[in-house]
Amino acid sequence: MINAKAKGSKGERDLVKAFNEAGWGCIRIAGSGSSRYPSPDILAGNAIRRLAIECKVTAETKKYFDVDQVEQLREFSTKFGAEAWFAVKFPKEDWYFFMIEDLDQAGISFSASTSSASYKGLRFTELIQKDKLS
Amino acid sequence: MINAKAKGSKGERDLVKAFNEAGWGCIRIAGSGSSRYPSPDILAGNAIRRLAIECKVTAETKKYFDVDQVEQLREFSTKFGAEAWFAVKFPKEDWYFFMIEDLDQAGISFSASTSSASYKGLRFTELIQKDKLS
Repeated sequence: MINAKAKGSKGERDLVKAFNEAGWGCIRIAGSGSSRYPSPDILAGNAIRRLAIECKVTAETKKYFDVDQVEQLREFSTKFGAEAWFAVKFPKEDWYFFMIEDLDQAGISFSASTSSASYKGLRFTELIQKDKLS
Repeated sequence: MINAKAKGSKGERDLVKAFNEAGWGCIRIAGSGSSRYPSPDILAGNAIRRLAIECKVTAETKKYFDVDQVEQLREFSTKFGAEAWFAVKFPKEDWYFFMIEDLDQAGISFSASTSSASYKGLRFTELIQKDKLS
């Protein structure tokens, strides 16, 4: 039985591997949850794009984000010069990637679900080819 | 008495603080020395520039870099889309920043010293304003 934190770390390492195998530079950030400055979980970049990604592994079919997490990701991404993305790993699914604008919002609560993912989430291969899609 | 690793970590945290206080986004990278993929110690960015920085705190007046470190920094920086910099903290000096081209090279050995720093190293304030200088 591995705990939620270990599952999260393994998830992040899998993503770092996927980006590197796709030819991007990608790193995990030290103490991203506890730093005095806002920071995402991973950063990925290539010659054209930089992505700041907050990663969530969940055992549910819906994942909530508090407004602080959303604001900190937005703040870091603006300062650093990166696109802001949430990555969510739902049970038995590959990672889905969401822009902040594509999270479901109700008051100050943000969320993504397996149903919203199917029409607003991007798969990894879509994420890294986004420049070709847009 | 703090050991070399702890001094290195403190040095990196000081740099992260300096970049953040200057309005940049800046983070330390998890396990940068032990990752299976090349990665620097810290990444800093603003709306225009991205810097990949390998940090060294030394008790000597000359610091050597092995060719692997130089090549890994170059490789990561090319893949991620960042400028490659070495930061060296000599005793009783503030940080100096060197581009790879400005390290002293003898065969496969690269180095920076307090004397080379005085004419080829940049201070922090010069580094973050480099777009205005060049």
